Amino acid sequence: MNRLIDQLVVKNDTKIVFLIMDGVGGLEIEEKGGTELQVAHTPNLDKLAESSLCGLLDPILPGITPGSGPSHFALFGYDPIEANIGRGILEAAGINFPLTPKDVVARINYCTIDKEGKIIDRRAGRISTEDNYRLCKKIEQNIKIPSGIEEVIVRPVKEHRAILVLRGDKLAGDIEDTDPQMTGVPPLPARALSKESESTADLVNGILSQIKSILSDEPKANMLLLRGFARYRHYPSIEERYKMKAIAIAVYPMYKGIARLLGMDVVEGPQNIKEEIDCFKENFPNYDFFYIHIKQTDSRGEDGDFDAKVKIIEEVDSYIPEILELNPDVIVVTGDHSTPSLLKSHSWHPLPVLIHSSFCRRDMVKKFDEISCAQGALGRMSMVHLMSVALANARRLIKFGA
Amino acid sequence: MNRLIDQLVVKNDTKIVFLIMDGVGGLEIEEKGGTELQVAHTPNLDKLAESSLCGLLDPILPGITPGSGPSHFALFGYDPIEANIGRGILEAAGINFPLTPKDVVARINYCTIDKEGKIIDRRAGRISTEDNYRLCKKIEQNIKIPSGIEEVIVRPVKEHRAILVLRGDKLAGDIEDTDPQMTGVPPLPARALSKESESTADLVNGILSQIKSILSDEPKANMLLLRGFARYRHYPSIEERYKMKAIAIAVYPMYKGIARLLGMDVVEGPQNIKEEIDCFKENFPNYDFFYIHIKQTDSRGEDGDFDAKVKIIEEVDSYIPEILELNPDVIVVTGDHSTPSLLKSHSWHPLPVLIHSSFCRRDMVKKFDEISCAQGALGRMSMVHLMSVALANARRLIKFGA
Repeated sequence: MNRLIDQLVVKNDTKIVFLIMDGVGGLEIEEKGGTELQVAHTPNLDKLAESSLCGLLDPILPGITPGSGPSHFALFGYDPIEANIGRGILEAAGINFPLTPKDVVARINYCTIDKEGKIIDRRAGRISTEDNYRLCKKIEQNIKIPSGIEEVIVRPVKEHRAILVLRGDKLAGDIEDTDPQMTGVPPLPARALSKESESTADLVNGILSQIKSILSDEPKANMLLLRGFARYRHYPSIEERYKMKAIAIAVYPMYKGIARLLGMDVVEGPQNIKEEIDCFKENFPNYDFFYIHIKQTDSRGEDGDFDAKVKIIEEVDSYIPEILELNPDVIVVTGDHSTPSLLKSHSWHPLPVLIHSSFCRRDMVKKFDEISCAQGALGRMSMVHLMSVALANARRLIKFGA
Repeated sequence: MNRLIDQLVVKNDTKIVFLIMDGVGGLEIEEKGGTELQVAHTPNLDKLAESSLCGLLDPILPGITPGSGPSHFALFGYDPIEANIGRGILEAAGINFPLTPKDVVARINYCTIDKEGKIIDRRAGRISTEDNYRLCKKIEQNIKIPSGIEEVIVRPVKEHRAILVLRGDKLAGDIEDTDPQMTGVPPLPARALSKESESTADLVNGILSQIKSILSDEPKANMLLLRGFARYRHYPSIEERYKMKAIAIAVYPMYKGIARLLGMDVVEGPQNIKEEIDCFKENFPNYDFFYIHIKQTDSRGEDGDFDAKVKIIEEVDSYIPEILELNPDVIVVTGDHSTPSLLKSHSWHPLPVLIHSSFCRRDMVKKFDEISCAQGALGRMSMVHLMSVALANARRLIKFGA
């Protein structure tokens, strides 16, 4: 499917905005009187929905609860199952680590182990970011690089989180987590999930035993756990595929990371929704595609804080007029997946979406929420097609076949 | 998917009618008060919709604007991406040229070039069809057939349009158009798009240089442009796949061409909607599957003439009682793609569809238009499944699996 779209793309000067409220999809809580979107007072989104095409999106497939990685790939029109990649790579891209095709990356959690080697704190007492920097340097300076690897790189992310990068010609990333996800047991060995990854897993185990002695004199972070192994892979960029100059406006590193993997320019700076919208307005003349990512809808959903999630939705609603004022050719409002406060986690529920352009069929939907949008003329669609519909509305796709 | 349907098909004596209004899907124009279908007065279609299953169809995939070729393949249950073929073949089949598996075909536009070889008229002043016949004969009589080719055939279509057929054992059709789609430049050379097509492209260029001298004494049509190269391929016929004797009732050659490629009987004669309906009635006893193609909805959409498209829809509506009178087991009314007057071109918007049979679930749709049908119980479906649903309603599909 991807190939078909790519063949039909043409360049023009239209602008597309994707306003993505992470985890915006919700579930009804009876005492609250509806879902988060139903309860929120969103006059601007509702008015926009009234003059838009509305529907529901399945991020991956019905019933599948996606992580942020695959759901974002779907959002940008990349097959989310085929494009899926380990979190290590997303994390590395998030801190703008210069990845190369030789890299296998895993996330690090510094942890505390007891004398018997059993984990007693999976987050090493949430050490400071400063300590994290010191520990990463300490490992890099003391490690003996085994043959078969060119470089071992350890980079801090935040608090107890860091990344491990192994650089070499014949490395593979199909390796199980060493984090057992519980205390009272020792870290797991790195186990290869494919024949091809066996030698890399052996190298990782050697490195882990070195790290154990390097960190042995540390009071808290005397070991580390590895998760989300992945080998770097190249994705064709948004610009290559869709001939659009793309900018990502996000606060959280992981979303910046995905955007970077897809070749978008990533803004550093904005720390809240207001600053993100300001940044969007500033950059409006210079780009074709705008990915605006709002994290807090997901965070409040994960907290199970229905009212706080409602408030974030209402805050986003208040900025809709500022987006409309710039008159982009296509505006898409949706999320990347659902995070109902009721579940305190990502979920499989499809997401409401509205698509606004001069060439959309207006349907009868008058409110932007999960139940109203289910009546929309877009119907229920796989999220991977959203970019095609946006490109079509931006008149950026030519006809297929004679 | 195709294979599954084919395995389940059984023969019986039910009859299926596909009434296809080309390009019927539209977009709202505010001053007009809706889309073409919404504005049209269609009491018969509306009444039929009321007792039918309604929904929306995506010809190819969301966002994709189809040419008539792929959308018709989808209509008849052939994977439109896999089945897609160059226009040359459709054109040749349209004039009932007896294609063979050895043929590579391209469309010809006779054109006028100046002394420097630059195109000054891409249609050679729209020469008469008579002239066209004469030119085709002139080329055929004077051309020296290069080794590697068995036959070079040139057949007139209409006005300045003709087809070029190269017949030979090792020819391939993956060749770019020689039509630069503009004047003031010379025709492009035939360039191979695959390694396999390189020798054929060389042969085409040799033939083109011969044709240039053959036509050099012509006042207007002193050169030609080639488009839509394609090698013939065999499609399993409607009769082979669905065990139905099928007839196509269409006015325009290209639609007859597609029908012929799929092994339908093609009626020659009808020149307007009334004559098409008469022809349908005449042939009703003798066939199982009836493809009735109405071209003008698309033509008026391409003209951007909203009111004229409305009128055509109303004319089609007036013939619905005559179709119902014959009491076919399944009636499907839809289009092959949308051609909104607003856009003056094919578009990506899904199409309204109604399916009428004794075994359809009736939904709450009471009007046959894009917005009403979006509320239908069929939902939004890929067009390639339409034939399966029609066959099921005609009781022509047995159970899959035990």
